[in-house]
Amino acid sequence: MQGSGSAVLRDSVLARNNVQVRGHGDRTLVFAHGFGCDQNMWRFVAPAFESRYRIVLFDYVGCGRSDLGAFDAGRYDRLDGYAQDLLDVCDALDLQQATLIGHSVSAMIGVLAAVREPARFAELVMIGPSPRYLNDPPHYVGGFEREDLEGLLELMEHNYLGWAGALAPMVMGDTAGPGLTAELEHSFCSTDPVAARLFARATFYADNRADLARLDVPTLILQVSDDALAPVGVGEFMQRALPGSELHVLQGHGHCPHMSQPGETVAVLDDYLRRRHGGQA
Amino acid sequence: MQGSGSAVLRDSVLARNNVQVRGHGDRTLVFAHGFGCDQNMWRFVAPAFESRYRIVLFDYVGCGRSDLGAFDAGRYDRLDGYAQDLLDVCDALDLQQATLIGHSVSAMIGVLAAVREPARFAELVMIGPSPRYLNDPPHYVGGFEREDLEGLLELMEHNYLGWAGALAPMVMGDTAGPGLTAELEHSFCSTDPVAARLFARATFYADNRADLARLDVPTLILQVSDDALAPVGVGEFMQRALPGSELHVLQGHGHCPHMSQPGETVAVLDDYLRRRHGGQA
Repeated sequence: MQGSGSAVLRDSVLARNNVQVRGHGDRTLVFAHGFGCDQNMWRFVAPAFESRYRIVLFDYVGCGRSDLGAFDAGRYDRLDGYAQDLLDVCDALDLQQATLIGHSVSAMIGVLAAVREPARFAELVMIGPSPRYLNDPPHYVGGFEREDLEGLLELMEHNYLGWAGALAPMVMGDTAGPGLTAELEHSFCSTDPVAARLFARATFYADNRADLARLDVPTLILQVSDDALAPVGVGEFMQRALPGSELHVLQGHGHCPHMSQPGETVAVLDDYLRRRHGGQA
Repeated sequence: MQGSGSAVLRDSVLARNNVQVRGHGDRTLVFAHGFGCDQNMWRFVAPAFESRYRIVLFDYVGCGRSDLGAFDAGRYDRLDGYAQDLLDVCDALDLQQATLIGHSVSAMIGVLAAVREPARFAELVMIGPSPRYLNDPPHYVGGFEREDLEGLLELMEHNYLGWAGALAPMVMGDTAGPGLTAELEHSFCSTDPVAARLFARATFYADNRADLARLDVPTLILQVSDDALAPVGVGEFMQRALPGSELHVLQGHGHCPHMSQPGETVAVLDDYLRRRHGGQA
């Protein structure tokens, strides 16, 4: 597997997922973006770690500057397909014991990947995770009624621009300012609509609660106190479901603290990584 | 003063000092680099603030990508000349109540600027400041004997490359890794030698202790616990000399925590700015 065939495969994954490797260090941080986003959204947070860690950034197929020619509706209609992208990137870079920092749906994509190949990951950091967006009465409150989600996804089918304009302020939160909200709306709009619809359905209808029990990698759950997509109760559910996990609730608004509160996000990440691996990174 | 003459003057300062303005926010953070460095050294820390603050980066004349044609040995042989650069940049951007984040000698340059024009600055953040590097027995320990400094400056006169190779590891600290140390050495070497010599003498022979009493701007002093250039005792001296100041000692090594410990540096800055101005920046 170390022959030229595997080198070709590696190069093709690195191009397909627009993989960028930066920084220096013995440990590697892999940043995985959320639905409707791309690696560019990590630009306020990742630089703070470049001087002591190797940083890996990538775009899922169908997002950002990935190779749209590689899009396959039979693969990317469920989160496992995206988990395979993540594992492909890990394999192409021969990563072991990396730190995965996953935003939103990438938290669950990370769970699926780490269940399949646990040695790839020393720990997962989940920013605004939700194992299920739909409520499941009487015990589970994901935050969304089925009608609400269907309305949102219907709007997406029929009026993609209207949908992006409605979702962006809800995701970014009230206090992030117009610049970031406009950026997110633009990012939604610049995602290929076919790919975005599949990814949206895969994300919002997923139920990964049972997968949590199969995860055996230490986890930091970073939740925002006022997040319209992933309420604090979901973070608390996650913490109970993952016995080795820590929950950190950041006081603030919105689902994208790595964009709206990057200084605090860096601080929480840095503190966790130092406690896990010491000051030498 | 709002006519075309002042616009020309403004544009010429922005070009002369290679001023870069980024980010969005009601408040402005001005990052001022230290001796032998340039604005590029802020790249691990500044992005974390871009989404909520306006960020100003610049190079002093004689450093980085400033206009070397503007170098004037009669101005840049003392720290007041550099303080004038900083005030020129503030004037060109019409800054009031900005936050100055000054590394090393830029802490004292900031003091001189804020004494002259206090309304420009809401607060100063000083990273590894020293009001005097030379010891002054029996009461003041700056950390350097005159012979040591003269030896270092002699080496600089006669063997600039040897000097850069000797100073860089001392400044960066033991644990920063070879990449950052090599970068700093390269930065020393790429500074114009004539400008570097004047700036070095202006920096290392300065005595700004008396100026501290004239500063009336709140200050955060960020000191590294093991810093060969600015020992913790100097930070404590600073705190006593500045009644409204806070001292934060970062556990670590070296004189450049914004490069070697950027995550922690971001965290300390973010916490201070939130306490000063609230979460809305």
